[in-house]
Amino acid sequence: MTRVSRRRLLGTGALTAAGAVVTAAAAPPAGARTAPLAAPLDASLTADVVIVGAGLSGLTAARDLVAAGRSVIVLEARERPGGRVYGMPLGDGTTNEGGAEFIGPTQDRIAALAKDMGVDTYATYNEGKNVYYRDGKRSLYATDGLLGAVPPDWGVVDLELALLKLGGMVQQVPVGEPWKAAKAEEWDAQTFHTWSRSNSLSGGARFLMDAFASSTLSMRSQEVSLLYLLNYAASAGNEANPGTIDRLINTKGGAQESRFVGGSQEVPIRLAARLGDIIRYNAPVRSIATGSGGVTVTADGVTVSAKRVVVAMSPAIAGKIDFSPGLPASRAQLMQRYPMGSVAKFVAVYDTPFWRADGLTGQAVADSGAIDATFDNSPPDGSRGILMGFMNQANMRKLDAAPSAEVRAAGLDSFTKLFGDKAANPTLTAFQRWDNETWSGGGPVGVAPPGALTAFGPALREPCGPIHWAGTETSGYWTGYMDGAVRSGERVAKEVDAAL
Amino acid sequence: MTRVSRRRLLGTGALTAAGAVVTAAAAPPAGARTAPLAAPLDASLTADVVIVGAGLSGLTAARDLVAAGRSVIVLEARERPGGRVYGMPLGDGTTNEGGAEFIGPTQDRIAALAKDMGVDTYATYNEGKNVYYRDGKRSLYATDGLLGAVPPDWGVVDLELALLKLGGMVQQVPVGEPWKAAKAEEWDAQTFHTWSRSNSLSGGARFLMDAFASSTLSMRSQEVSLLYLLNYAASAGNEANPGTIDRLINTKGGAQESRFVGGSQEVPIRLAARLGDIIRYNAPVRSIATGSGGVTVTADGVTVSAKRVVVAMSPAIAGKIDFSPGLPASRAQLMQRYPMGSVAKFVAVYDTPFWRADGLTGQAVADSGAIDATFDNSPPDGSRGILMGFMNQANMRKLDAAPSAEVRAAGLDSFTKLFGDKAANPTLTAFQRWDNETWSGGGPVGVAPPGALTAFGPALREPCGPIHWAGTETSGYWTGYMDGAVRSGERVAKEVDAAL
Repeated sequence: MTRVSRRRLLGTGALTAAGAVVTAAAAPPAGARTAPLAAPLDASLTADVVIVGAGLSGLTAARDLVAAGRSVIVLEARERPGGRVYGMPLGDGTTNEGGAEFIGPTQDRIAALAKDMGVDTYATYNEGKNVYYRDGKRSLYATDGLLGAVPPDWGVVDLELALLKLGGMVQQVPVGEPWKAAKAEEWDAQTFHTWSRSNSLSGGARFLMDAFASSTLSMRSQEVSLLYLLNYAASAGNEANPGTIDRLINTKGGAQESRFVGGSQEVPIRLAARLGDIIRYNAPVRSIATGSGGVTVTADGVTVSAKRVVVAMSPAIAGKIDFSPGLPASRAQLMQRYPMGSVAKFVAVYDTPFWRADGLTGQAVADSGAIDATFDNSPPDGSRGILMGFMNQANMRKLDAAPSAEVRAAGLDSFTKLFGDKAANPTLTAFQRWDNETWSGGGPVGVAPPGALTAFGPALREPCGPIHWAGTETSGYWTGYMDGAVRSGERVAKEVDAAL
Repeated sequence: MTRVSRRRLLGTGALTAAGAVVTAAAAPPAGARTAPLAAPLDASLTADVVIVGAGLSGLTAARDLVAAGRSVIVLEARERPGGRVYGMPLGDGTTNEGGAEFIGPTQDRIAALAKDMGVDTYATYNEGKNVYYRDGKRSLYATDGLLGAVPPDWGVVDLELALLKLGGMVQQVPVGEPWKAAKAEEWDAQTFHTWSRSNSLSGGARFLMDAFASSTLSMRSQEVSLLYLLNYAASAGNEANPGTIDRLINTKGGAQESRFVGGSQEVPIRLAARLGDIIRYNAPVRSIATGSGGVTVTADGVTVSAKRVVVAMSPAIAGKIDFSPGLPASRAQLMQRYPMGSVAKFVAVYDTPFWRADGLTGQAVADSGAIDATFDNSPPDGSRGILMGFMNQANMRKLDAAPSAEVRAAGLDSFTKLFGDKAANPTLTAFQRWDNETWSGGGPVGVAPPGALTAFGPALREPCGPIHWAGTETSGYWTGYMDGAVRSGERVAKEVDAAL
């Protein structure tokens, strides 16, 4: 809901002149702005480290490397920071979270960063019951957990047994190194779909396990390695609290527990503002050349020579860069095997959050329609109502070539089925598609199909000479989340600083 | 074994001057050379059609479009034509097939092209017995078919039943449109590994089904969608002869039945020579921009404006090109979901094909060592002996960072275990790795993991405005083979000609 000025997004200056050496003051205090720099187009710059991507991972790495006294240039393809964290314009001068949105317990590193940036959090609206829509029938269930969603029949037992088994497997995954699990080979040889069908019999249990994959990964369960999914749940924790499926999927006590005042994008926007003019926008990186003296990174309008480069991007999108000499096969082929999910966020704005008066949380899960999961995305004071729905996997793909009006109609049709006729007449709608967004290529996260993690997993993080890898996909804890992005930035900054 | 001059590979001239319109004579007779052209570096060219990639698919498309009277420019990243068809230098001035090699029955289109180019074929050496190496034990078996390889125990029945079932499923796949199979959803939800374990019990049967995936796709069975594998077998035929597993894997009567005199690369080399100077080498395409007037294709050193573009590359490698505006999500995300296999071909040259005297074909299958499948790659007259071994999937990855000497030692160790001590002392060795080859990114073919074909399959061939897609991955029959590449070139040429 924050008004974001274009000026703020673009920063206030440009970079150093051709050939200038950019050196940060030794270990400036956290929060210090580096000196403004000025450069023409097609600038040629030099720094200790060049970072590709001004998402949360790249920005965090830049923050820590600047604090360590290193000179840093950040190259960002878009005209804004944040990557998959984005305040989607609603058309009335305000924004709503169009990408990564929530924060929950054990997400310590994004919490610390937000606190440092002065961005407060508040509870996701979660009072009342959730909507369950399946086989054309709408029913209500108590909030939180997959179990509450199953009608009171033997399906409850079916799902409970499957989740107990799955939870036990989650505990056996070494966080961030799933390929080292004792049963890694067995689990990486099958899809989550295969496992869920072998370990449940009821339609209800199977639907909710598919919804689990769809709502967390924006993929069908057919596309996901069982090992990847187990690791995703194992990563939903911190050093003191092992990851669990519940913490991944729940609102209260889980990853969707809270939101950021002003929207999640406030965190990268403020961090980028603090870093200042070491960030160069509208500078998509086209090539990374490695030589004896370090790296040469060429982006539209700027070339940076540096000792080390941090590629803070998802593997699939990093794969678009031309590396010379070519990367080792383990890394090059990993980047062919880590596709992004298919997702859009669709929001509708109403004068009031009318569903609250109906005793509903605004949360729903559905087996049909364009939207299969929803949340109440209203502002903290509830001064107006905003419903948000995910268009995930096959639902998203069906709308691939659809004009905006058709996407809008499909979204409102879903909201109306789930929350009643009042949902049919919003004052505003907006949506953010990620699957046809060039610089993300999908969302929320890169996902491994069967056979990829056991064969190529270590290449996620292993540096290739002076090329280091960051991004939420490389994180042990909270991979796929903003917390994982921050963790990856902190990890890679230490790695690079030690190597310099 | 042909001596290939650099001049021949590079062609004899350059392209038209900046801005020149390249127009082929209307419908020149097949085999006619287009007029030589001359251009400086950073040329700006215009044509009806620009083709990206001078592999067999791109060259075939160029041949047919030129024959239809269209002006054509072909941009090739490498300094040679052929793509995944390559004569690997042995270091003594001769070459041996380092990439696609064989031709078999029903591969009518590559056969017709080779005939037109004056390239003859001869039978792959196939006299005697094959070597079966498993659990450290070496045994011999009658040639051809997976069945012959199983020791005479109940495993024969086990494998036979599994293959019967698999063969029945193959018949239910609509060639080139596997996503339309009645059971497409079920088959695309699982890996071939899942299916093979559910439908066999013996170690022997399971090993040979894994070897099937490895030797045909250079992937572990864990990585491959069952639906993709079924389609691969369904594609091993022609309009009159439905595809079968046997035709895919056999030497006699199958895809490995014959070889080309002088090596398979003679076909693209001669076709490229006939096309002449419309091919520009060392011109990797970096971007394709679509506008109202057609397309602008920018490569290193040359920009081509055209009405239509044919991207004749595997989906994964086509994904490295920067498309503007961005491609539809269905195509953009398909290119994230079609990884290449991991493969090298390793050859050792001996004074004589000594294994023939031992009653061996030179063909072997092994469960350990760097090489899991071999062939006799000797010249037609047997004047010297050449053993060829595939380093596939995990075996290839283990050697990712290995220096050449280590790869050589591993390859010779395999040959010695399979063919005896005489194999330890070759006069020459050579190998061609494809997985760390920038312009192929692996081989032999792009493979779909579970969930990809049913969700994204149609995007393999569907044009995106003026952008058309070719490459063996887009072929119905013989996808993954040279024949499929030629078929795809012929199909796309018709498609483009009709659209112009």
